[in-house]
Amino acid sequence: MAQITLQDLAYELNISVSTVSKALKGYPDVSEKTRKLVIELADKLNFSPNVVASNLRTQHTKIIGVIVPTIVHHFFSNVIGGIINEAEKNGYMVILLQSNEDFEMEKKQLNLLVQQQVDGILISLTVETKNFEHLERIQQRGIPLVMYDKVAKAIDCSKVIIDDKKASYDAVSYLIRKGYKRIAYFGGSMVALNFSNRFLGYKQALEEYRIPFDDSLVYICDTSDEYNDGYNNASELIKKHGIIGVDAAFAVTDVIAVGITKYFNTHNISIPKDVAVFGFSNWFMSSVVTPPLSTVNQPGYEMGKKSIEILLKEIAQSKDKKEIVHERIVLPTTLEIRQST
Amino acid sequence: MAQITLQDLAYELNISVSTVSKALKGYPDVSEKTRKLVIELADKLNFSPNVVASNLRTQHTKIIGVIVPTIVHHFFSNVIGGIINEAEKNGYMVILLQSNEDFEMEKKQLNLLVQQQVDGILISLTVETKNFEHLERIQQRGIPLVMYDKVAKAIDCSKVIIDDKKASYDAVSYLIRKGYKRIAYFGGSMVALNFSNRFLGYKQALEEYRIPFDDSLVYICDTSDEYNDGYNNASELIKKHGIIGVDAAFAVTDVIAVGITKYFNTHNISIPKDVAVFGFSNWFMSSVVTPPLSTVNQPGYEMGKKSIEILLKEIAQSKDKKEIVHERIVLPTTLEIRQST
Repeated sequence: MAQITLQDLAYELNISVSTVSKALKGYPDVSEKTRKLVIELADKLNFSPNVVASNLRTQHTKIIGVIVPTIVHHFFSNVIGGIINEAEKNGYMVILLQSNEDFEMEKKQLNLLVQQQVDGILISLTVETKNFEHLERIQQRGIPLVMYDKVAKAIDCSKVIIDDKKASYDAVSYLIRKGYKRIAYFGGSMVALNFSNRFLGYKQALEEYRIPFDDSLVYICDTSDEYNDGYNNASELIKKHGIIGVDAAFAVTDVIAVGITKYFNTHNISIPKDVAVFGFSNWFMSSVVTPPLSTVNQPGYEMGKKSIEILLKEIAQSKDKKEIVHERIVLPTTLEIRQST
Repeated sequence: MAQITLQDLAYELNISVSTVSKALKGYPDVSEKTRKLVIELADKLNFSPNVVASNLRTQHTKIIGVIVPTIVHHFFSNVIGGIINEAEKNGYMVILLQSNEDFEMEKKQLNLLVQQQVDGILISLTVETKNFEHLERIQQRGIPLVMYDKVAKAIDCSKVIIDDKKASYDAVSYLIRKGYKRIAYFGGSMVALNFSNRFLGYKQALEEYRIPFDDSLVYICDTSDEYNDGYNNASELIKKHGIIGVDAAFAVTDVIAVGITKYFNTHNISIPKDVAVFGFSNWFMSSVVTPPLSTVNQPGYEMGKKSIEILLKEIAQSKDKKEIVHERIVLPTTLEIRQST
């Protein structure tokens, strides 16, 4: 039988590694009940505290596991690019798994990465992920975990994100200062923290500039079909409000914005004269379409690079049995203004 | 020590599993020299032929390894989509590795997949891959291997491809029949079989219609920067030949074609009136740009789906110790004609 580790005890009892360690060492801040449970289990499993050093996860595969919700998206492929290039420089290989915005798949894939003995995990959560036990289990095993883009507030780990609310607020404020008043919002699923924050930013800008919020100007687009949803929702928007009733459309991704643009271009709606269009992410195609799109610079490559830099640091700290201090990195976003506004 | 398998003997001697098997069974079509080598090694390693059944690779992880040259490309993301969806239906998980068009990385990643004990491997080769020993080693280990898109003629395995030469020939013939005579070719690295075949198709069409081949109309674009290379080479093309000296541009990917389109659109060159543009792959953006691009329908999703269907079949055949008959699937391509020609 393989040597029992502190992580195994923590996992079995569903408590943190540090609690197990403190219980075994007789620290006073561990409850008597917990202390007894730990000692009984350690005894039963022949845990040997005298080899604490070797009990720490010492197997290093030089492999990182990365879970992305989707690969078929320019933003995530930029993030992956940043991760892979930085990994290569540090002699690490990257196993990529696509969760396909499916919570069950995300859980299976985390298990797979544990099986495959990766040294650390980078993950952006699915739009469906509402509870986080599967992530806690990873941490209990002592596997370094860093989240990027779609993160969980409830999990204490390093995170690399953008300030989605501010980015959205900046874009919508810009439109308002340019004189637009009837601004439609083309968003994503509100379960996802980043999309709900972008919606809050939109509302905050309207509120600050005293523009009444009109929920009939809000459309939700499916992440798996952004282009078509952008196109079709633009059609709905014009049917409902006409060119008079709306003067700008802000979309939470450039692919949605391109869908909106295509609808307007093929229905004699002039951009920006009739309706301005503002996107998000600065996909290379946003500068190519007619007219070129104003958008939010979303630093995908840097997000990937920063995420793995932090992960590699935590892997090293874990290996050297140093204390791991988590970081929360908020990457700046800027506006890219082009001819669509 | 783990039980020695037929695969281990084959790997050590750098010969096929079937040769090892035949040598041990005393088949006459194995040379005496080979037979001796096999028997000596089997003896030395305590190989036991009475447990042939258990010597076949029996560990099944229900994991497939997929190597793609690049993920940040719509064609490959469609292929991955086809693979992943079909894998899921069959209860398999997919480990994705991006070789980044780097031959050394491709080799390392194949080793990684062997380490990770995947049940089978799908691979599209890098544009640099000129020798194939690393693939032979995989086969010697008895691991089912299927190639897609960029394949190696020298390796006997199942392959799923398109007829690159015919697809290119069809596109260029179409242009010629429409009256275009000075057709520029925007291609990819000639090391890659699929790109060199597309070039042959271009030349074949010119030849058949008795249009002189002019190598000053040929440009090679880097796969890692297709959009910009398309744009910049279009600029070179016009500098060298002027609008008079060229009437059509055929590009081996839509991303290149979009780069060409952007250059023409921003330099008062009318498409198709001054220069027609024809792309390849039918990326969704090819129908979105102005004017919408004519292109070759390249069945990415079906290629992924078919590749893994064959791989799963071969994994099952291998498990049941049935003979594996390799397939060579050539998926049909059609032309999508739009306003750019």
